[in-house]
Amino acid sequence: MSQDKLTGAAVAQHNSRDSCWVIVHGKAYDVTEFLPEHPGGQKIILKYAGKDATEEFDPIHPPDTLDKYLNQSKHLGEVDMTTVEQEEKAFDPEEAARLERIQRMPPLAACYNLLDFEAVARQVMKNTAWAYYSSGADDELTMRENHAAFHKIWFRPRVLVDVENVDMTTTMLGSKVSIPFYVTATALGKLGHPEGEVVLTKAAKQHQVVQMIPTLASCSFDEIVDARQGDQVQWLQLYVNKDREITRRIVQHAEKRGCKGLFITVDAPQLGRREKDMRSKFSDPGSNVQNGESEVDRSQGAARAISSFIDPALSWKDIPWFRSITRMPIVLKGVQSVEDVLRAVEAGVDGVVLSNHGGRQLDTARSGIEVLAEVMPALRERGWEKRLEVFVDGGVRRATDILKALCLGATGVGIGRPFLYAMSAYGLDGVDRAMQLLKDEMEMNMRLIGATRIDDLSPSLLDTRSLSGGHAGSLPVDTLGLGAYDPLEAPRFNEKPKL
Amino acid sequence: MSQDKLTGAAVAQHNSRDSCWVIVHGKAYDVTEFLPEHPGGQKIILKYAGKDATEEFDPIHPPDTLDKYLNQSKHLGEVDMTTVEQEEKAFDPEEAARLERIQRMPPLAACYNLLDFEAVARQVMKNTAWAYYSSGADDELTMRENHAAFHKIWFRPRVLVDVENVDMTTTMLGSKVSIPFYVTATALGKLGHPEGEVVLTKAAKQHQVVQMIPTLASCSFDEIVDARQGDQVQWLQLYVNKDREITRRIVQHAEKRGCKGLFITVDAPQLGRREKDMRSKFSDPGSNVQNGESEVDRSQGAARAISSFIDPALSWKDIPWFRSITRMPIVLKGVQSVEDVLRAVEAGVDGVVLSNHGGRQLDTARSGIEVLAEVMPALRERGWEKRLEVFVDGGVRRATDILKALCLGATGVGIGRPFLYAMSAYGLDGVDRAMQLLKDEMEMNMRLIGATRIDDLSPSLLDTRSLSGGHAGSLPVDTLGLGAYDPLEAPRFNEKPKL
Amino acid sequence: MSQDKLTGAAVAQHNSRDSCWVIVHGKAYDVTEFLPEHPGGQKIILKYAGKDATEEFDPIHPPDTLDKYLNQSKHLGEVDMTTVEQEEKAFDPEEAARLERIQRMPPLAACYNLLDFEAVARQVMKNTAWAYYSSGADDELTMRENHAAFHKIWFRPRVLVDVENVDMTTTMLGSKVSIPFYVTATALGKLGHPEGEVVLTKAAKQHQVVQMIPTLASCSFDEIVDARQGDQVQWLQLYVNKDREITRRIVQHAEKRGCKGLFITVDAPQLGRREKDMRSKFSDPGSNVQNGESEVDRSQGAARAISSFIDPALSWKDIPWFRSITRMPIVLKGVQSVEDVLRAVEAGVDGVVLSNHGGRQLDTARSGIEVLAEVMPALRERGWEKRLEVFVDGGVRRATDILKALCLGATGVGIGRPFLYAMSAYGLDGVDRAMQLLKDEMEMNMRLIGATRIDDLSPSLLDTRSLSGGHAGSLPVDTLGLGAYDPLEAPRFNEKPKL
Amino acid sequence: MSQDKLTGAAVAQHNSRDSCWVIVHGKAYDVTEFLPEHPGGQKIILKYAGKDATEEFDPIHPPDTLDKYLNQSKHLGEVDMTTVEQEEKAFDPEEAARLERIQRMPPLAACYNLLDFEAVARQVMKNTAWAYYSSGADDELTMRENHAAFHKIWFRPRVLVDVENVDMTTTMLGSKVSIPFYVTATALGKLGHPEGEVVLTKAAKQHQVVQMIPTLASCSFDEIVDARQGDQVQWLQLYVNKDREITRRIVQHAEKRGCKGLFITVDAPQLGRREKDMRSKFSDPGSNVQNGESEVDRSQGAARAISSFIDPALSWKDIPWFRSITRMPIVLKGVQSVEDVLRAVEAGVDGVVLSNHGGRQLDTARSGIEVLAEVMPALRERGWEKRLEVFVDGGVRRATDILKALCLGATGVGIGRPFLYAMSAYGLDGVDRAMQLLKDEMEMNMRLIGATRIDDLSPSLLDTRSLSGGHAGSLPVDTLGLGAYDPLEAPRFNEKPKL
Repeated sequence: MSQDKLTGAAVAQHNSRDSCWVIVHGKAYDVTEFLPEHPGGQKIILKYAGKDATEEFDPIHPPDTLDKYLNQSKHLGEVDMTTVEQEEKAFDPEEAARLERIQRMPPLAACYNLLDFEAVARQVMKNTAWAYYSSGADDELTMRENHAAFHKIWFRPRVLVDVENVDMTTTMLGSKVSIPFYVTATALGKLGHPEGEVVLTKAAKQHQVVQMIPTLASCSFDEIVDARQGDQVQWLQLYVNKDREITRRIVQHAEKRGCKGLFITVDAPQLGRREKDMRSKFSDPGSNVQNGESEVDRSQGAARAISSFIDPALSWKDIPWFRSITRMPIVLKGVQSVEDVLRAVEAGVDGVVLSNHGGRQLDTARSGIEVLAEVMPALRERGWEKRLEVFVDGGVRRATDILKALCLGATGVGIGRPFLYAMSAYGLDGVDRAMQLLKDEMEMNMRLIGATRIDDLSPSLLDTRSLSGGHAGSLPVDTLGLGAYDPLEAPRFNEKPKL
Repeated sequence: MSQDKLTGAAVAQHNSRDSCWVIVHGKAYDVTEFLPEHPGGQKIILKYAGKDATEEFDPIHPPDTLDKYLNQSKHLGEVDMTTVEQEEKAFDPEEAARLERIQRMPPLAACYNLLDFEAVARQVMKNTAWAYYSSGADDELTMRENHAAFHKIWFRPRVLVDVENVDMTTTMLGSKVSIPFYVTATALGKLGHPEGEVVLTKAAKQHQVVQMIPTLASCSFDEIVDARQGDQVQWLQLYVNKDREITRRIVQHAEKRGCKGLFITVDAPQLGRREKDMRSKFSDPGSNVQNGESEVDRSQGAARAISSFIDPALSWKDIPWFRSITRMPIVLKGVQSVEDVLRAVEAGVDGVVLSNHGGRQLDTARSGIEVLAEVMPALRERGWEKRLEVFVDGGVRRATDILKALCLGATGVGIGRPFLYAMSAYGLDGVDRAMQLLKDEMEMNMRLIGATRIDDLSPSLLDTRSLSGGHAGSLPVDTLGLGAYDPLEAPRFNEKPKL
Repeated sequence: MSQDKLTGAAVAQHNSRDSCWVIVHGKAYDVTEFLPEHPGGQKIILKYAGKDATEEFDPIHPPDTLDKYLNQSKHLGEVDMTTVEQEEKAFDPEEAARLERIQRMPPLAACYNLLDFEAVARQVMKNTAWAYYSSGADDELTMRENHAAFHKIWFRPRVLVDVENVDMTTTMLGSKVSIPFYVTATALGKLGHPEGEVVLTKAAKQHQVVQMIPTLASCSFDEIVDARQGDQVQWLQLYVNKDREITRRIVQHAEKRGCKGLFITVDAPQLGRREKDMRSKFSDPGSNVQNGESEVDRSQGAARAISSFIDPALSWKDIPWFRSITRMPIVLKGVQSVEDVLRAVEAGVDGVVLSNHGGRQLDTARSGIEVLAEVMPALRERGWEKRLEVFVDGGVRRATDILKALCLGATGVGIGRPFLYAMSAYGLDGVDRAMQLLKDEMEMNMRLIGATRIDDLSPSLLDTRSLSGGHAGSLPVDTLGLGAYDPLEAPRFNEKPKL
Repeated sequence: MSQDKLTGAAVAQHNSRDSCWVIVHGKAYDVTEFLPEHPGGQKIILKYAGKDATEEFDPIHPPDTLDKYLNQSKHLGEVDMTTVEQEEKAFDPEEAARLERIQRMPPLAACYNLLDFEAVARQVMKNTAWAYYSSGADDELTMRENHAAFHKIWFRPRVLVDVENVDMTTTMLGSKVSIPFYVTATALGKLGHPEGEVVLTKAAKQHQVVQMIPTLASCSFDEIVDARQGDQVQWLQLYVNKDREITRRIVQHAEKRGCKGLFITVDAPQLGRREKDMRSKFSDPGSNVQNGESEVDRSQGAARAISSFIDPALSWKDIPWFRSITRMPIVLKGVQSVEDVLRAVEAGVDGVVLSNHGGRQLDTARSGIEVLAEVMPALRERGWEKRLEVFVDGGVRRATDILKALCLGATGVGIGRPFLYAMSAYGLDGVDRAMQLLKDEMEMNMRLIGATRIDDLSPSLLDTRSLSGGHAGSLPVDTLGLGAYDPLEAPRFNEKPKL
């Protein structure tokens, strides 16, 4: 036993609100004063007061978190981990079943499309991680509409075109890419895979597509940039901090480290409530949630906790300031109306992402693809279609979805959850295969639609008549409200014969 | 044993149509002559002839009922309840299962939205109470459409608006409220909670919203007014009696007691048939319902019974008379067509509620929100949109629903069943949480839609194209008629191999 | 034992194609020569060769059939039934279950609407009878659309109308009726009830509604007319025979016996195939249906068999002839297009029934109510709406359905199956209650729509926008083709862990 | 034992990539050098190296394959099959269940429509064969839409037309046919029936309909032509080979052998991915599919393998060349847009088939019937409707479907899968009955629609309003993506009572 190291017993004494130490990766920290500031609430920390919090800490906090946010004087030094008492975990039949399912996982080669990864991930991911990734706002109408909206657009293919050679390459914000999709920013990659977002970095390199680095990554920004290879292109997704100096530092650091685009998230002045995610937190049988004490923090899920810094006052007035601090192209992520796209052109930004944040913010917001079908004619009418690049994300699962967006006039599409699912189930190989499947689909479908280059794609290849007025038709049958509805009954027969 | 008190045995002798005494709250009453006048029919009283009827009597009759409607000479005085024979109740496995479910109720904090209270209430309420609250007219197409109609309206949100401060307050009929919904009138609150409507009064106070007092409350009108605190605002919902003197007394009493609005129900010249409610009355295994004797009364449910006084002759000609007896603002509750809204303006009333009575009256009547989308343009076309306040109720479950109504031009929305369910499952705490959840949703969703004040809400924030022509799409799959339908079959295989 | 009577043994010897005797109601008949002429095919008769066929014969043949169609010389006289060997019936578990269900039937008072009778009848009717009544053409899309189409029409009710007194009476083809529906013609009433169509005659009398007498009744025409009481009104439904003399006799006999209207069926030049009905014939485990011999007859159901006399050559040219042989008003039953309604006016007939034969003829023919919505504007445009009466049938289950048809401009609606189901389950009491329920619904719904007389009903009370283009929305989910469809699958997990 | 014959043991020694012999139909072949050229990949051959491959070989290769593609020097001569070791097959419970189901198959007479054959075939076909026939591209939205689209078209029948005599005959490409459908080309008939496509030839003869001979038949072209009788008409379906000389030989041979039409497939520059088919290949428990080696070939299904010769460079420029090598009428099969139909007229071809390849190529391509409804007005507008014959295929299951296509203006419809299913389940008798059922339906439905000749069919007999904008309505509920979706949940009750 080292003289220098703290013992588990010593740490364990600081197990209360008055003196709260925790162990993370073999080091002890005094977080007593930090407790009220913790974005995720005090309770979740107090649960680990005097104990090892590494397993809970890791996926939600980038490794540089403690250095950045906790004063060095509170870093208490190494702990002799052999002296830390291991908590015995109660047998969890759900977790046991999950581990058993992992033993029986389908081989990667049995995944033929992006939906397959989702189906597998659902079976092999931890419940809380699955809930965080897969949930949407309120009744999840928008989340489901995002995918369903693509099914309202049908093809009008052309035949007898020489499609021997198909070229899927295109350019986004000045960078050449092999196929017009990019890996969009999604939070907390380590919930799905211990290595986190760098897995996506590696896969993006293999397939020459752009990765957008999320503000709320599990890896630190620099780790993700360090994983970049060669001329690989990365963009930065930005939640704007109330403290603009912090924002300035983040942006200028990203530019210095080589990011080629700044995507400012504009659809999240407040992070949405995802009830399915919140419900997944209630599994703890010992929770005394009805004891009157506020437990808002725990039930809101990880994202809510880490979002308290986002500035709800961000407005069009801030755009010139962004222009002044960076030369990266500026793209507004989360635009949802024609009016705002026109305003974006006038504000001189370089692009917009038509997006509803994966259906995680405002329920019954329309799908990006539907907004796109309104936006492009309005731009063309004004001759503005070259003045900015229009991206779209949400619900993209097939190359046909990508083709539809491009036929309507998008520069490219963002894909998020499907790559998270591929990563969570199969790691880098999974993401690699997911991207390859999209490429194979894309090549085939361009042939079948009669297009050999991205420039061949045009609205005349689509029938979009069902987009207008089709919201009722996609009404899902499993809305909670109908689930609680008693079906109408016929007269009941008696249980016994009449005497 | 007291000399003054009646014995149970004495009462028990009057157990027939010829002499019928009943005990209510420890006092005996001679109801022999009243039998034919009972709005709920004789049979239900005769079932308790000579017995204690308190448990059945309570939820359906306000406490002042016997004083009001039974001559004092028939009040026979107190009964020594120790001498009243307790009927042994047969073991009821459904009731036992219900009580067991109550032991396992989810904690209140696990309810994340108004639909959750409905799901819990369905499990913990008495079957007959649930049937009364939750049922609708005929095939319940309108009842379900009420909620589904909101899903045909989608948002066109604005981004980059400074939404740091959101102000949800507004004014209804001159009263300031913290959020634009009110507790609408619903009958028989004690079916769900032993304290009845005063629970809603208390919750409305906590959240500074208006409560509309129902004519058919389980509590007496004065009890509900007495529960009011401070500057709390209440309105009166009125079923107009055939005897206009009674109506005059009710209205003027309400005004005197401080009610700030008179809502005259115009969609119920006859109370609707709710078959699900009627079916719930048939559970009694001993019922000899096929013996030829009319049993209309019992099978029609409580509401039908207590409604026989409502005047089906009420018409536009009566409006001036109401004007003459009160200075409260007059609002017509249950208007369902543009034509009638225009006529209401001409009649000089102060408001209308676009409502189909929660889908409990005319089946395949359209939802209030759909009618609203027709009404407001017609009013604006004539420059009449400020001449009356337009409210809407039916199917409101989410703050997004409220926002849609307000964007279209409503002053506010009424919410009924969800608060009944919250009250039935969790009492005052439940209603409190339900209202708080709506406020939290409202604040977040105003941010996400890009609005900071109620005045910011406008039709340009909505896509309503699916409202027209979308009735077919929402056709429910569980209509009774289809339930009785034999699915088409493929050829049947033999049960045994051919020899 | 009587000298005069035949013995069972004597009859039993004539049990082959060469000499085929059968017993019906205690009398023997030699049908050897008749075999090839039997509309239902020889096989079904040969099954009873030498035996008692009464049970099978009865529901399908009116009692005067043998007198009419079999030469008197083949009537062999009475049989001593004590000498006829009773066939022991094999135990049939389905039939036993049906009889057991009849013991537990819900009381009549538990039927609250017409759909309830259907649900009960399905459980208590013989399978073959249920299949005959309930089946429709092909995939039954039209049959289901008939009811669903009413759900595409929604109300725009008026309020504050004095509806104390509601008058539902109206006039059809000059006859006063208490409510604007009539009992339309349906075949083979004895399949559902041993007394057959006269049950409907009695119920129609009780409620002062018109009964239309079917050509293919189980009772003879005269029996049904004989059951008429007082000033009760009956109409005749007519399948036109290839032999016009037979048709002339039927029509003139009906007029002489007091029928007040002649409804010529024009939608059945050939009777439809109802596969569900055909499938119900295959239950016989001993059938050697694959032995090469044609068995078309048995598998086509009763209706096909008895329809071979219907004249497919009937055309507009025949109308003047009908005019020449009767003074009854002439109505064409089964018109399905605007064009044909206009032609009917020009042909001078007195009315049309917009009908697709209950969905039993051409699948994906449109519903009568949808055709009505096209027909009335076309008539009004020409000022022809008074030149003929327009009836509609198919799918009517609720008073709201009747109201919708009348608002659009129909004179009345026909109701068929619901009364058959009520009769099959509960006899005359059932039909009586079914009619009373419709009257109760009608009175209430007229109040709720704001109409006191039939003349108050107008198109402005409806929203019919969903009628156009709504066929896709009503696509049923249980079409056979989709039932045979394999749902898409996710990758399969291995059954055992990988080693 | 013959001197001349090879022994099983001798063949068995050549069981590797270095020396690979296989036995087919009792003869040995040295395929060592051919391995890399095999369109289906090497692995599938190596599985049978040194063994008898007949069972796997047969359905996928026409009998003349080895003669055509393997140099005679590699034909090693006969094998004494008594010396070949029989591999013992592991017990396969699925196969055993299938064989048991075959014992209980419904009699043929129990199949009343084309959908019935599909339902039976699904139960009695080998899983891999069923998967190959029944699968479609991606999420099978187009495959299902093909049938569903017919349900968006409804009839407007005419009555009182003399329909005693109905004439269904018509002319296609100059040939008289008894009814306006033809047997369209489908690949690999021996998967369903050991005799393959000649079964269809015989049935087509019996019913005087045209058979289109597929390029990818299991039988050789000459076998299928040899099976032709009398004046029977056959057409050739052509996949155009990269080597145009091969194509020239095929076309000119077909013309010489009497084919009366050349259908050039234009919708398959690359054969589609059918994931359900691919998934069916993964049943082999011994497969080491995750061992890193590429196994693309095996998982792509039979069709992919045999399609590598198809020329993706085929274009409009090739049409004159086809004109130059044959005098057969030329029809483009797989046209999917108005634009291409107009171009086909200009190119001078004799016809088009509006088709999406049975939903097996591009998912969310529109149905042929929907395209037809756009194409015919465009042709009529230009007066071009007689300049080419327009055929349509995909989803035809009922005579009503055929009638709808003809009313819109099609010359005839192609039917593929239904006849394969009838053949697979019941052989020639099955196809015969399927065709007879269609004829019976056609005759009846022409009567019911009021048409006696094909020329009577016109657009005025249809209501097609639901075709536009109805894609959303047909959204299937079992899309994989929704299958992986977690339904929303209500709050969970505790498992145990609170203490």
